[in-house]
Amino acid sequence: MKDSPRALENASVTLAEGMHFAGRIDGFSIDIDAEESVGGRGAGPQPLRLLLLGIAGCTAMDVISILRKKRQEVDDLEVEVLGSRVEEHPRVYDDVEIIYRVRGKGIEPRDVERAIELSEGRYCPVIAMIGEATRITSRYEVKEA
Amino acid sequence: MKDSPRALENASVTLAEGMHFAGRIDGFSIDIDAEESVGGRGAGPQPLRLLLLGIAGCTAMDVISILRKKRQEVDDLEVEVLGSRVEEHPRVYDDVEIIYRVRGKGIEPRDVERAIELSEGRYCPVIAMIGEATRITSRYEVKEA
Repeated sequence: MKDSPRALENASVTLAEGMHFAGRIDGFSIDIDAEESVGGRGAGPQPLRLLLLGIAGCTAMDVISILRKKRQEVDDLEVEVLGSRVEEHPRVYDDVEIIYRVRGKGIEPRDVERAIELSEGRYCPVIAMIGEATRITSRYEVKEA
Repeated sequence: MKDSPRALENASVTLAEGMHFAGRIDGFSIDIDAEESVGGRGAGPQPLRLLLLGIAGCTAMDVISILRKKRQEVDDLEVEVLGSRVEEHPRVYDDVEIIYRVRGKGIEPRDVERAIELSEGRYCPVIAMIGEATRITSRYEVKEA
């Protein structure tokens, strides 16, 4: 670590019962659970899928923020992330696809494209990290409000 | 992608307001929000931190599962994950520490150590993926119930 102190971020899980764990991030509670095939009982999402949600949230925030700076009138932004897992342990995602759906008045597709490029190539730490381990592709759709 | 069809896993976020997005994984709702410095209002955790929770949950499930197979009487298992971020964009974690806290009756430290090794080295896909992008270290504590 560097000499200058940096704030540590943290998250934790505590056993509830079975494979159900109570998770905490910054005072927020997020229950997680395993797949049913390995003892889960549907108390929460599986931990690996949090990576997909992390990708979706991180890039969505970049994109909405950049589009607002460009004075684009965005009414809706949905980001969906799909992951395909290999069969062998540790069963990582080897293919991830991001789909951006933007709805608004007179949205300029080139601005959406540029916002996505900036997020994926420069700003989004989740994509920068996960992109070291898997192929990530993306596409977008623009709809008139 | 391979010829055999593989089930896709997915997650999505939809704009709520400001930098607050409503997230969904497998029917579970998880709100996320940005840091206050960039317009967040505390509606949920920041997306990057979901990676820390993913690590915690994934390895906790492996470890509890392996310890139960070894007939260890685990009363409590807490896994805390700390991440340190670089200053430069895209502000990734460059250092992650995992702390395992196991409590139970007559828990064998060697079994805990072996369970952690198996999770970190073979079973946990979150660690396998995030480990491509950052240094991950870990330690554990065992307490008598």
